[in-house]
Amino acid sequence: MPKRQRHQQLTQFIEDNPFITDRELTRLLKVSIQTIRLDRMELGIPEVRERMKLMAERSYDSVRSLPLHEVIGDIVDLELDKSGISLFEIRQEHVFSRTSIARGHHLFAQANSLAVAVIDDAIALTVTADIRFLRPVRLGEKCIAKAYVKSISGERSKSKIECFTYVGEEMVFQGNFVIYRSAGEGEYEGGEVIADRN
Amino acid sequence: MPKRQRHQQLTQFIEDNPFITDRELTRLLKVSIQTIRLDRMELGIPEVRERMKLMAERSYDSVRSLPLHEVIGDIVDLELDKSGISLFEIRQEHVFSRTSIARGHHLFAQANSLAVAVIDDAIALTVTADIRFLRPVRLGEKCIAKAYVKSISGERSKSKIECFTYVGEEMVFQGNFVIYRSAGEGEYEGGEVIADRN
Repeated sequence: MPKRQRHQQLTQFIEDNPFITDRELTRLLKVSIQTIRLDRMELGIPEVRERMKLMAERSYDSVRSLPLHEVIGDIVDLELDKSGISLFEIRQEHVFSRTSIARGHHLFAQANSLAVAVIDDAIALTVTADIRFLRPVRLGEKCIAKAYVKSISGERSKSKIECFTYVGEEMVFQGNFVIYRSAGEGEYEGGEVIADRN
Repeated sequence: MPKRQRHQQLTQFIEDNPFITDRELTRLLKVSIQTIRLDRMELGIPEVRERMKLMAERSYDSVRSLPLHEVIGDIVDLELDKSGISLFEIRQEHVFSRTSIARGHHLFAQANSLAVAVIDDAIALTVTADIRFLRPVRLGEKCIAKAYVKSISGERSKSKIECFTYVGEEMVFQGNFVIYRSAGEGEYEGGEVIADRN
């Protein structure tokens, strides 16, 4: 592969996933880690830790629907009513003791609280979720959840959120959430009642 | 309503939900709490706390797929590969600080871990879940989850689990889980791969 093409691909990979490591890039581009490092230097792209630090420092929208400390995972990017990204590292307290496989509800909690956090309203509650665990996640792995807000036609009080969680380049979890949202005047009375009202 | 008919209904309500309180029974049968107490005495049915204690002491199957202390909620009944019941009380650490509404992932965790616990195999992992939050659950409420195992035709390595969570008589959460199961020889490699193999 010519260098110019590799540079283009490298830039694209990092744009798609700013948390990709040099080691993962060697696998994808089939070149040595030295080549990746030189390429990054030539392109002026900092290493992954530096990129994460920059993203964390970057100004992004503030979460409205819940206090920031109640979000499961660290939010590193947020554009209200559009998209959000959070990071969650699987620690000892998140895994089954026998297998060191992450318990499903922690992956769900990361995605669900990100789906709530991207809503630009004071009140946001999950009505339904269709989720899929694509492969077991293990102790020490870093989960990157990305959520995208879609509107639901004819529904002002609900949004659909698509969430994808990755470890490196690999998708490990996927969820579609329907979130009830409100400026705070009403009282949530369950999915069915809300649906009847609209 | 004649007394005999009321006694029949009372017995049925308690059979359907052993955790129903006398106060909830007054609402359903539209009689005073004194009447409920007298009825229970005549019928030889102990009060709710005593019933819960008896159920907890009753011998039931042991959980195989995970250590008992890793189940979220207290298992009060379990028939492996058939059904299970667990209790989970919503405490301060389970609710959103602003609203005192239980966070979705705790209700999911109760249902999901019960769905895993009812599996009569050493390894059980959630592949997919379709869940629905029917009404917000609040601080102090006691959630009773009931799970039922259904086989999937032509699938030996997966089971479908239907789970319903109640507060009193009211259903607050519903979930359909597909659980991958194995005696322990193989390695789980994600829903898709398993599906291709069978």
